[in-house]
Amino acid sequence: MSNTKANILLIGSGGVGTIAALNLEAGNLAQVTAVLRSNYQAVASNGFSITSCDHGNLKGWKPTTITNRIPEKTAPKYDYIVCTTKVIADCAPLTADLIQPAVTPGHTVIVLIQNGLNIEKPYFAAFPENIVLSGISMIDSHEVAPGVIEHGSADDLVIGAFRNPNLDCAVEVAAAERFVGLYSAAGKTKCILGLDVAYSRWRKLVFNACLNSICALTGLDTGRIRLAGDAVEMLVRPAMEEIRAAAGSVGVDLPAEVCEEVIGAYPVTMYLPPSMLEDVWKGNLIEVESIVGEPLRVGRANGVAMPTLSVLYNLLKGVQWKTKEQRGLIEIPAQGGSVADS
Amino acid sequence: MSNTKANILLIGSGGVGTIAALNLEAGNLAQVTAVLRSNYQAVASNGFSITSCDHGNLKGWKPTTITNRIPEKTAPKYDYIVCTTKVIADCAPLTADLIQPAVTPGHTVIVLIQNGLNIEKPYFAAFPENIVLSGISMIDSHEVAPGVIEHGSADDLVIGAFRNPNLDCAVEVAAAERFVGLYSAAGKTKCILGLDVAYSRWRKLVFNACLNSICALTGLDTGRIRLAGDAVEMLVRPAMEEIRAAAGSVGVDLPAEVCEEVIGAYPVTMYLPPSMLEDVWKGNLIEVESIVGEPLRVGRANGVAMPTLSVLYNLLKGVQWKTKEQRGLIEIPAQGGSVADS
Repeated sequence: MSNTKANILLIGSGGVGTIAALNLEAGNLAQVTAVLRSNYQAVASNGFSITSCDHGNLKGWKPTTITNRIPEKTAPKYDYIVCTTKVIADCAPLTADLIQPAVTPGHTVIVLIQNGLNIEKPYFAAFPENIVLSGISMIDSHEVAPGVIEHGSADDLVIGAFRNPNLDCAVEVAAAERFVGLYSAAGKTKCILGLDVAYSRWRKLVFNACLNSICALTGLDTGRIRLAGDAVEMLVRPAMEEIRAAAGSVGVDLPAEVCEEVIGAYPVTMYLPPSMLEDVWKGNLIEVESIVGEPLRVGRANGVAMPTLSVLYNLLKGVQWKTKEQRGLIEIPAQGGSVADS
Repeated sequence: MSNTKANILLIGSGGVGTIAALNLEAGNLAQVTAVLRSNYQAVASNGFSITSCDHGNLKGWKPTTITNRIPEKTAPKYDYIVCTTKVIADCAPLTADLIQPAVTPGHTVIVLIQNGLNIEKPYFAAFPENIVLSGISMIDSHEVAPGVIEHGSADDLVIGAFRNPNLDCAVEVAAAERFVGLYSAAGKTKCILGLDVAYSRWRKLVFNACLNSICALTGLDTGRIRLAGDAVEMLVRPAMEEIRAAAGSVGVDLPAEVCEEVIGAYPVTMYLPPSMLEDVWKGNLIEVESIVGEPLRVGRANGVAMPTLSVLYNLLKGVQWKTKEQRGLIEIPAQGGSVADS
């Protein structure tokens, strides 16, 4: 019976990943092996505690299998590997390298439910025969303690295929459609096919590259940034217009109204901290390269002036550097020590 | 005997002000009344505890008089009122208003040992007959607990006169010279006359508008910012060049070498947090208008492109807004409340 289910490996089971696992298993068309890291012990002992607007309250829930390392076997083959970790492109090892032992060439479909631009590139390079799907998730789901998930607003997922010129487009689309079917089978969520991946990803960047960045640097959430004087006028909107211009430079037409839609996406008084602000608060590394650096590089390569994004990017790189130092990833000379002065 | 001493009122007796009081009293040509705020109780009970590279270790030191309010009398007249508080121009009440009862028109000389541009304007407006002096201080002195001062590197003070077209320039200069004499009498410090006030202030802004801002926003100190990848190249130097251009637009010629001098002013491994970064860490309001907003407005009014400073300024205004909210100076709608959506 379970042999007919899709065999899915999930990388990263935090706020987004755990609800993905729950959706997939609830639909009864898939079985999930979740690779856990920081929350492995907690979940192995007690399962997940989930408070979900879509699924109700679950205590002790586990996907079919949990593990604390990437499986080094591919029998049975994984049909899908779903990655929901943050994309920290400036910090090795890359997920594309880590999942290598679990990928069956020409078979496993890799699904990146992750933000940012050009995130498919390392997967295209490592797995030239495998389909890579794009997932753009709008979900208010957070792991508030190891294994404890609070999921506050409906899971809204757009699935498409990253166009790989070496593969058959129709087969890519079929893989995306099948995944939408698996994800939607429980009827609990809004998962749709969105084949214009570039549009979906650039549109999400209007939020992520701009509000994420500005909120992370000022400490203001999505409500407060709108209350704080002319911050929207002087920072948020100029940054968003630069993203629109960069998108336009690669043929992605984001209508002007998108900026207002994104600014007003949540009621002011939700005071929702964007994920990058939360990461700064928690001392986590941030997705600075995939959601700010890449669109900046794309825009600039096409001659788009991006003065606001450029400053935001360089400030965020400073924040990232400090986090790396705090996490022991960078060593600096001792206080009072002598260093060559450049 | 003490009648012949200069009668000085000091506003703000933290790291900078307390060492100023100490210098002035040590020279024996001045008596100081210090107006204390947050540290009044501590100092009234135990005096100041001072560890100073210039004055050694002092326990229980007090200036001639301490008080917790601006004196409402002007007999004997104050010869000088020395302001060493931070300039928080976006937050009433202004010091120029507060000191009004202690100023004798046409007599009291007001000394602003404070950073930033156009800080003399409210004093010119409130006291049109009084001389206003400029003090640019380079001092590594901090109040680490109420009444506890750590003074680590030599007090380096440049005194000049803000040119008031209604007053006699020679009299302004004489007042500045006399103050330098009072301040230098103990022979413990480097206090010099620097009559080119615009130059001194813009030169200090090369540090304050740029390193203060960038360090406050990234959390990096003056050493780490130099170690952190290309932060100097991509942020610090462009911001400094914008300040140089703005200074040039009002006839202040800052040579190109100034940027390198300021970047390398301290050894990397001092890891010195600029005052604005310290203020952010402590949840204090920052001098965003006087040291970033004003030079930006001056440059822009003269057609200088200042894309880096502009983003830094608007981000810092966001940080300031958040601090005001945390200090109860701004009220926001309750979470989940309804607000008119603009």
